[in-house]
Amino acid sequence: MTKLHLTQARAELTHTITALNESFEAVTVSVPAERALTIYVDKREIVTLMTLGVNPELLTLGYLLNQKLIASPAEVASITVDWCATEEGGAAAVKTHSGLVAIEQRTAHRIVTTGCGQGSSFGGLLDAAQQLRLPDAQLPQAALFEMLSLIRLQDTTYKQAGSVHGCALFRIDARRKSAQLLYHVEDVGRHNALDTLAGWMSLQALQDKGCSDAPRAGHTGCALYTTGRLTSEMVLKSVQMGVPFVVSRSGMTQMGYELASKLNLCLIGRALHTRYLCYTGGEKITP
Amino acid sequence: MTKLHLTQARAELTHTITALNESFEAVTVSVPAERALTIYVDKREIVTLMTLGVNPELLTLGYLLNQKLIASPAEVASITVDWCATEEGGAAAVKTHSGLVAIEQRTAHRIVTTGCGQGSSFGGLLDAAQQLRLPDAQLPQAALFEMLSLIRLQDTTYKQAGSVHGCALFRIDARRKSAQLLYHVEDVGRHNALDTLAGWMSLQALQDKGCSDAPRAGHTGCALYTTGRLTSEMVLKSVQMGVPFVVSRSGMTQMGYELASKLNLCLIGRALHTRYLCYTGGEKITP
Repeated sequence: MTKLHLTQARAELTHTITALNESFEAVTVSVPAERALTIYVDKREIVTLMTLGVNPELLTLGYLLNQKLIASPAEVASITVDWCATEEGGAAAVKTHSGLVAIEQRTAHRIVTTGCGQGSSFGGLLDAAQQLRLPDAQLPQAALFEMLSLIRLQDTTYKQAGSVHGCALFRIDARRKSAQLLYHVEDVGRHNALDTLAGWMSLQALQDKGCSDAPRAGHTGCALYTTGRLTSEMVLKSVQMGVPFVVSRSGMTQMGYELASKLNLCLIGRALHTRYLCYTGGEKITP
Repeated sequence: MTKLHLTQARAELTHTITALNESFEAVTVSVPAERALTIYVDKREIVTLMTLGVNPELLTLGYLLNQKLIASPAEVASITVDWCATEEGGAAAVKTHSGLVAIEQRTAHRIVTTGCGQGSSFGGLLDAAQQLRLPDAQLPQAALFEMLSLIRLQDTTYKQAGSVHGCALFRIDARRKSAQLLYHVEDVGRHNALDTLAGWMSLQALQDKGCSDAPRAGHTGCALYTTGRLTSEMVLKSVQMGVPFVVSRSGMTQMGYELASKLNLCLIGRALHTRYLCYTGGEKITP
């Protein structure tokens, strides 16, 4: 198997500015960074994402996966990110082993979606999601509460500067009724955060199995946490990532609800401390 | 002048579902609607937006304006929205008087942006914004507080179902130090809300002036309120709409800050009751 080469581009995540408060006093506040990252695949420009910049290589990988422009990270030879590529922002240069299949067709149909975040997807996501089958799994309530507690303890850009969304993946041990934080990422857009997580998951799958056709879905015993609202696109992406539980601090929309019901996703919202509302798949939560 | 014909398509904005709470009790909750609206201009498919559905005709008009696909509502003969167009969702059929100019070129460059919301724009928005000049204006602090108070009193889908963003336009009377609510709209995406407001503003300008080349910018004495974060795209759109003051319940990003500084926009965040932080243009707020 050919190794996937990723750069490790880093950038400042917060910035300090001086604001005037209601008493006309100067106060110093932190704000999150927001920078442009243009993705090129085999020198072809695909899209420009506005991002916080935590892990642009994984964001790029996850974006290509979630937009179904690639089916596996094994298709990619390298992702090279340069934050100083142009005056306008950074560039992520993706080199594939054998080119993107049917790129014209895949990028032709645009859906501009609702959510906080990147909010744009190429066609066929819904069709694809309907063909997936989420693993049957259970989420003990104690493990759910542990997830919420672990998230609260994270050192975050949100705590420092606000105005970002967070996304995290947990391993659930149903027997021990416990949760373990696997990966946590923040971005100015919640879709970027979710895509970065998708990139991380795909890489884990690739490394664990050591084979190029490692399945991306079927992550039994995993649960996803997001600070963002559960709109249709968030639900679709979660299903695509094969995660059977999605937990949000926020609420959801009607289409998020309908898709989750249809796709057998357990959707939990308004989750904070020891409170939550389980919208779909309530039978999967055990006392 | 030819009259612009708009349908008045309406749809349910909330939906009631049963959820399970942390005590495994069934509770009834309201969730906001989310529906697909595909925009066609002269039978050419442009984009599909996911929207709450409050005023799809104004959303369509504002989207075309903010994406610079049209320069004035006077270019449009009619917008016909049918929520039952297809099984997948509604359609907005836009008929122009003389076609879109350079549509291929204008839709070629995609930027997928950060914010909550629709989050995608065609090229050249930044270049265009830099050529605009916002009117010099002052915002008395008492008028700002009145804005926040009027917003709080609004009967909203947010209060009923959560998970939506709101956007409102106010007329500011600097002499009387007062604010008057002109238009308020909510959507599942904050960009949709802002675009709907842009559509409404453009229509007002068209009707007020009674001439087809009514200027869209230069709304001295206007201020915009949004519940969403002030990211780069929100700032660009506000400048494009010619509103010199933007107030948000949320915070902002570094690029939102930099653009607002450069474009002479007064940016106010974390605004609630009688508290706020003025990030840029602080000298425009008077005691």
